[in-house]
Amino acid sequence: MAGTDAQSGRAWPPTPDFDTWPVEHLPAGATTDGRIVTVAWDDGRVSRYHAIWLRDNATEPGTHSPVTREQVGHPWDLPADLAVSAVAVAENGSIEITFAPECRTVAYHPGWLRALDYSNGRHDDLGDIAPTHWDSRRLAAPPTFDGPACMDRDGALLEALEALMEFGIVRLRGVPTDETEVQRVAERIGTIRNSNFGFLFDVKTAPADSRKAADSNAYFSGALAPHTDLATREYEPGLQLLHCLVNTTRGGRAVYVDGFAVADRIRQTDPDLWRAVTQIEWTFSNRSPATDYRWRAPLVVLDKNGDPREIRATTFLRGPLNVDFDDVEAAYAGLRAFQTLAAGEGFAMTFDYAPGDLVAFDNRRVLHGRTAFDEAIGERALKGCYMEREEVLSRIRILRRAKRANRAA
Amino acid sequence: MAGTDAQSGRAWPPTPDFDTWPVEHLPAGATTDGRIVTVAWDDGRVSRYHAIWLRDNATEPGTHSPVTREQVGHPWDLPADLAVSAVAVAENGSIEITFAPECRTVAYHPGWLRALDYSNGRHDDLGDIAPTHWDSRRLAAPPTFDGPACMDRDGALLEALEALMEFGIVRLRGVPTDETEVQRVAERIGTIRNSNFGFLFDVKTAPADSRKAADSNAYFSGALAPHTDLATREYEPGLQLLHCLVNTTRGGRAVYVDGFAVADRIRQTDPDLWRAVTQIEWTFSNRSPATDYRWRAPLVVLDKNGDPREIRATTFLRGPLNVDFDDVEAAYAGLRAFQTLAAGEGFAMTFDYAPGDLVAFDNRRVLHGRTAFDEAIGERALKGCYMEREEVLSRIRILRRAKRANRAA
Repeated sequence: MAGTDAQSGRAWPPTPDFDTWPVEHLPAGATTDGRIVTVAWDDGRVSRYHAIWLRDNATEPGTHSPVTREQVGHPWDLPADLAVSAVAVAENGSIEITFAPECRTVAYHPGWLRALDYSNGRHDDLGDIAPTHWDSRRLAAPPTFDGPACMDRDGALLEALEALMEFGIVRLRGVPTDETEVQRVAERIGTIRNSNFGFLFDVKTAPADSRKAADSNAYFSGALAPHTDLATREYEPGLQLLHCLVNTTRGGRAVYVDGFAVADRIRQTDPDLWRAVTQIEWTFSNRSPATDYRWRAPLVVLDKNGDPREIRATTFLRGPLNVDFDDVEAAYAGLRAFQTLAAGEGFAMTFDYAPGDLVAFDNRRVLHGRTAFDEAIGERALKGCYMEREEVLSRIRILRRAKRANRAA
Repeated sequence: MAGTDAQSGRAWPPTPDFDTWPVEHLPAGATTDGRIVTVAWDDGRVSRYHAIWLRDNATEPGTHSPVTREQVGHPWDLPADLAVSAVAVAENGSIEITFAPECRTVAYHPGWLRALDYSNGRHDDLGDIAPTHWDSRRLAAPPTFDGPACMDRDGALLEALEALMEFGIVRLRGVPTDETEVQRVAERIGTIRNSNFGFLFDVKTAPADSRKAADSNAYFSGALAPHTDLATREYEPGLQLLHCLVNTTRGGRAVYVDGFAVADRIRQTDPDLWRAVTQIEWTFSNRSPATDYRWRAPLVVLDKNGDPREIRATTFLRGPLNVDFDDVEAAYAGLRAFQTLAAGEGFAMTFDYAPGDLVAFDNRRVLHGRTAFDEAIGERALKGCYMEREEVLSRIRILRRAKRANRAA
């Protein structure tokens, strides 16, 4: 944003976004050959920028709306012979670039230009948080945070969300046990993902008279093997929140597993099983009178680098396997290996839900399940909702942006 | 489902789902070697099924819940030495299979077993509808259907949804111009996808006094180049509905483009541009005070076969390009080629929105845009929402299931 730098007292040109860009280095000089602008910084670093890149990111009203910060100009409408005709470092350290044949001069914020330098390797523009894989020895319980503090203080929330992205799971404690509190927590992060199970859903034993219409095994009291939810969809929900309201029954312990760690183990130990879990596609299929969701995917979906991108393990929503005849037994062997590891003590983290606990987890990475419980001797009620990981990432960026702005002020 | 076949009067065993499986062929005989069951049908076809596959799909209460039709048994808990010890064709044509070492006999519905035969090639268990690519010559206007008929008659809705999956776009006419009618239409299909733009969103010129807070170019009166929405998200919405409530202005014509057809053209004509649009990743980035969504993707995302899977063309939400230095100019050349083709007369379908028109389109395939309009001489208001393609596919399967059941009755 345009503004005056608190420390230097300098007035900077605007940037094409809402962020704060500290000026830690100033340009010592700048030159151009028409196609590329070369900036020499006061610490010796040299950065190079293409004319088309600079022009596309110009902060003048014909290119970026000063209100929405969205692009209003189109780079494909720019002259094909676009070039830089002049470049100068202004007294305050801004870099002024003149474009031909337009004869348009645009000033660039030096902090922004330095941070976005792509000529010395790519910079981290997504704010990526690398996952730390875990088994039950490395992580015996979810990273745990104070619920009310996360609602009140941005710093507390940021810490919890960063842990969520790293480990795929966090637990908030002391979240008020109101029916809609999970929605308040979710919306402190971002938008809730609706589904045919409702905007919020209940995980509790359905009253006996409604059993006949129950549309998920989750509504009974049996054990649930570790699984991901909604592998039947093109896009499995990226995030799930489960908030414990009541727990006076016996059993019903929470079970969580890092599916990426299970996948790693298979990759390291058995190439045939690895092929089976990553290449043979199950047909996931829901079976209700009113909906019929289906999707085909392997248990472990790989990214373009061959690493696990998501786990598709809604194993009780498998339709009949529909693959090459010779792959059938291999598919079942892969499923058996994956689920046996996932449910075993080496990988599964197990704990009791206390009322007020809210567990948030990456549903494309962390499997969840429960031990059976005795519905005759008490009550057990969780309230849940789905979200997307992109909501967490957006909130993290906003909280980090505010932190940078506070530091700069 | 269990039940009596209307034509034959035979009572069949249950199936593990809610569908109807016509019995068009009966088994003439069945044998087993313990591992595989071989069924000879009365038309000469021979089908083979693995013991583990049959056991996993057994319709007995310990394997499938008779209420939810979800699996309650786990194939990974079955004995490792599972085998078929006996197989028989019952008098009514059911196939009765006995498993060892369990000594459990399960009867299989012959229509279901025949339809799910995987030993003679894979069957189409998703109900796939192949896309037909189009340019403005092949499709001058969206396939058009009567809105009220689609709300009232399942057959009319099925026809419209099948066209939507094939062409990526349909238009319903005569949809009542109430503010929330788009929600009624959407929920006749399935679940709406919420976003930070709201459950439903307005595409109309914002009142002058609220301009300062506008968070999208869509809320102004300028032209919008053909684009997809929300490429800033991990998962672009698969479906968008736009319902015209009022249109008394001049201009503001609808523009729609089949992005897959544009991609095909580039693939056929220029390998360098094809590499640029499919391999070089843009950083899509929204820029609002309250949210900061970012995702990195090429303009054309390919599936595992190398064919276009989705178009990521929210071109006015590009953050600064952050790629290898030597790819910068190629990325802009690819963007220019793609957008120039997309906006050209060869590919873009253009028409006027009439009040009561509701256009539904695949937002991962079909780009949408508009010509500029004159807000001084009238009003223009669209109401929209996002959904997922999986909701359309689920509804198509349910409507087809009902059609099969009606035929069988």
